[in-house]
Amino acid sequence: MGYNEQERAFIEWYPRGYGVGFKVKRRLFETQTEYQRLEIYETEGFGKLLVLDGTVQLVEVGEESYHEVLVHPVMLAHPNPRKVLVIGGGDGGTLREVLRHDTVEKAIMVEIDEGVVEASYLYLDVAKDLLDRLIKKEEPRAELIIGDGVKYLRETDERFDVIIVDSTDPVGPAKLLFSEEFYRDAYEKLNEKGLYVTQAGSVYLFTNELLDAYKAMKKVFDRVYYFSFPVIGYASPWSFLVGVKGDVDFTRIDLERAKKLDLYYYDPERHETLFQMPRYVRKLLEGQ
Amino acid sequence: MGYNEQERAFIEWYPRGYGVGFKVKRRLFETQTEYQRLEIYETEGFGKLLVLDGTVQLVEVGEESYHEVLVHPVMLAHPNPRKVLVIGGGDGGTLREVLRHDTVEKAIMVEIDEGVVEASYLYLDVAKDLLDRLIKKEEPRAELIIGDGVKYLRETDERFDVIIVDSTDPVGPAKLLFSEEFYRDAYEKLNEKGLYVTQAGSVYLFTNELLDAYKAMKKVFDRVYYFSFPVIGYASPWSFLVGVKGDVDFTRIDLERAKKLDLYYYDPERHETLFQMPRYVRKLLEGQ
Repeated sequence: MGYNEQERAFIEWYPRGYGVGFKVKRRLFETQTEYQRLEIYETEGFGKLLVLDGTVQLVEVGEESYHEVLVHPVMLAHPNPRKVLVIGGGDGGTLREVLRHDTVEKAIMVEIDEGVVEASYLYLDVAKDLLDRLIKKEEPRAELIIGDGVKYLRETDERFDVIIVDSTDPVGPAKLLFSEEFYRDAYEKLNEKGLYVTQAGSVYLFTNELLDAYKAMKKVFDRVYYFSFPVIGYASPWSFLVGVKGDVDFTRIDLERAKKLDLYYYDPERHETLFQMPRYVRKLLEGQ
Repeated sequence: MGYNEQERAFIEWYPRGYGVGFKVKRRLFETQTEYQRLEIYETEGFGKLLVLDGTVQLVEVGEESYHEVLVHPVMLAHPNPRKVLVIGGGDGGTLREVLRHDTVEKAIMVEIDEGVVEASYLYLDVAKDLLDRLIKKEEPRAELIIGDGVKYLRETDERFDVIIVDSTDPVGPAKLLFSEEFYRDAYEKLNEKGLYVTQAGSVYLFTNELLDAYKAMKKVFDRVYYFSFPVIGYASPWSFLVGVKGDVDFTRIDLERAKKLDLYYYDPERHETLFQMPRYVRKLLEGQ
């Protein structure tokens, strides 16, 4: 796991000995934050690479393949997303995409690890200006809270149209973000029409974690959808889960609003293709 | 490129320094065939791994994610595929999937490198029995020809309903299989209603090769479709191109025939999701 001298590469090893690697020029930064070990590398072909506890979080060139796909399908399926909560997402990429929607009046981002926000601000070209404004409390439509997302969601009096969980994988510190209890808190804090979305791991390599999360969400939300996308930097395809509260149809999105976004990875005009899933995984999910 | 002692892994490095790796227990076999360097490894979690000239061809556990997706969409879109040509595919996986269709009366496989067929027969659990029957000329519905697919297609008097190109990537020896001249030969040797399919490389990392092949196919076929799927072992998503001759609609497949196949990766009931493509790649393709 990690930096390999012989290859001059950072390689992340997944279960069953499957690896995703990036050739790197050098390590730019490393630190132990309050919560995790954080490293930043300069890659040969994908800009800078952010690593937390040995797992790839993003590469600059291609990060939109994650952030666009996490954010825009739910934002465009919701008829009028005005209040949005982002849990995690300390690099700022998710909030950046949220704020591209004119409908948004207020977005709150709750990140547990200030170290991720600081390192992202200092080293990454993902959402530098936005993070700067957030830190200085100069962003009119958004607020950064450094704190525990689980605790925040349980205690807040705010209500949201869309809740986006942009966390590390459902193993380790983020495990609680994939629990039935947390989903119940989220459901309660959604408005009458609300959408919840979370990344849910590698389709092929974290299939059991995907199934567990889907099962738990089905107990809580009115309807649950799964979809997948090839995220650059992860063992693709990557899975995502959407929980629906009330009368919202996630299979349809607002193409008029989509046009203004001019996206690079997620293709609103081909929204139906988002639901690609190997047949055996679909069967496992539907067998729940 | 290749085996890494420090990691005990085989890692294939793609352009821009992107790597896909498999932890391996040992190398089982290596040889220089008449055409290429061939290696077989035993991986930790994906069965055996076949490598040609340093590039991953398949892993046993997951090879269906390639062979099913290459074969069944065209076979199920064609109303009655009786005569099928496979070019390449020396491991036998593609022909194995072709022969699962009862409609097939005769399938011909033209593989240039006998060494691939032999090593696959001896070492891989992909299509051992089928290769055995082919070598002994005991397979009633299929024939193996060791020879140059380009030359074969130019000279044959046979006509086909479906032509499947299961080759190495459009760099090096397989380059001719992605040329306009070859597509013209293929078009000519298709019956009045015919489908041609080829793998076309990594969507993200061989985008230019995909665009070039698409452009050349558009000059020849009546209609051309692109699709993608997460193939295990390759830098996913992997792209595929379909050329249509005559009145066949590749967006519709025969669900009745599909049911009998009980597939693992390709999902005929969600055929429309096969067309997933990052939006910028779709725009590039449509800009042709």
